Amino acid sequence: MMNDTLYQHGTLALLVPGLLKGTMTMGELLEHGNTGIGTGEGLDGELIILDGKPYQINGQGKIQVVPADFTVPFATIHQAEFTDLGKLTNLTAAEVYQQVAQQVQSQNTFFSLKITGTFQAMKTRAVNKALEPYQTLVEASQKQNIFTGEQVEGTLLSYYSPQVFDGASVAGFHSHFLAADHTLGGHILDFTLAKGQVSWQQFATLEQHLPVTDSAYMQHDFARDDVTSAIDQAER
Amino acid sequence: MMNDTLYQHGTLALLVPGLLKGTMTMGELLEHGNTGIGTGEGLDGELIILDGKPYQINGQGKIQVVPADFTVPFATIHQAEFTDLGKLTNLTAAEVYQQVAQQVQSQNTFFSLKITGTFQAMKTRAVNKALEPYQTLVEASQKQNIFTGEQVEGTLLSYYSPQVFDGASVAGFHSHFLAADHTLGGHILDFTLAKGQVSWQQFATLEQHLPVTDSAYMQHDFARDDVTSAIDQAER
Repeated sequence: MMNDTLYQHGTLALLVPGLLKGTMTMGELLEHGNTGIGTGEGLDGELIILDGKPYQINGQGKIQVVPADFTVPFATIHQAEFTDLGKLTNLTAAEVYQQVAQQVQSQNTFFSLKITGTFQAMKTRAVNKALEPYQTLVEASQKQNIFTGEQVEGTLLSYYSPQVFDGASVAGFHSHFLAADHTLGGHILDFTLAKGQVSWQQFATLEQHLPVTDSAYMQHDFARDDVTSAIDQAER
Repeated sequence: MMNDTLYQHGTLALLVPGLLKGTMTMGELLEHGNTGIGTGEGLDGELIILDGKPYQINGQGKIQVVPADFTVPFATIHQAEFTDLGKLTNLTAAEVYQQVAQQVQSQNTFFSLKITGTFQAMKTRAVNKALEPYQTLVEASQKQNIFTGEQVEGTLLSYYSPQVFDGASVAGFHSHFLAADHTLGGHILDFTLAKGQVSWQQFATLEQHLPVTDSAYMQHDFARDDVTSAIDQAER
């Protein structure tokens, strides 16, 4: 069942040493679902896919739909079939994640979390596209721009990964945001939820695709990279 | 392309605290390929699937084909389409793995290695089936039986996993053996190759299925388990 499967191209780990080449097109990615998150070649902005539309929040905070030939080094996508979990009001980000985790009791498999509503505060980041030779993830993420908004309506889309898959993905919640009026978005650093409709979708299968035709990826020696530490600095 | 996909049910990590319930039948597993390795419920022996036949080497070293309703907590399977790599002669296990790794240059994706030939020495282990309440992997593997043979003809089937997936599977090579006359087999601890025909098959995708309907798995707190250390003790 496709709706039971989370598809991932690339790994978070390959971003760490700067293997930032786009190795799958958005057109190919969208064959695996209509909902997702990711980044572009050279960490070219933050991506959020909603209802089959792939939005890019670029390093300047500008939001646009990317074309089918836009390429990604890392992205996660699935076919939406969310189940409603009810409403949440007046909670910090940590409280939201804790309450959802408590409610779904699903810490040992992958799931997606979607919250549509009003965010009292929203703080995101997006990275400017790097050119070759690529920087490491930590270097690139230090050059990110940060965007904030208050009383923002929009959609939070998050993927939860079990601890044992840290490195392949980001263990715990990894969340992107898109404002309803497309004036704010990106990788979420922090938020406060005013009022939101919460839904989730559990996956039994992770379909993990690797860029085996990219020689830079295939020949890289990951033994030199401290993946977990880099994820902590750049993604959590 | 199915022949480009490695299917895995369960994780090595779930064996560590003793989540040993069989959560998929052999019949279901065989829908995903004709070649693989795994273990039975309660670590009931070592499994090796060749040409669609699922052989079990039980804790006493006895070898038999298991029925379709035999259940597994952890198994890896794919549809065979191996490519020949030539012959190797008079090498230790470490030398074989090193030469293959050097030849295929594929350390950052999953692949399978098959060697058919004569093994000057072969040392395997198999575990006796445990009953509930299950022991941890390290406790169970200390009660393994060890089997040895000299000048044994047979098939080594191995799966290589990239380092970042350690825990989901066994990083590096994870190898099982079946003698041509079915008198020796199991999880390989060590070997010397006299002369073997070597072949391999690379995978671009890991299809990782998790036992989401098993409440013991879903509710377990893996934070208490030292998965890497346990894999080192029990599987490498």
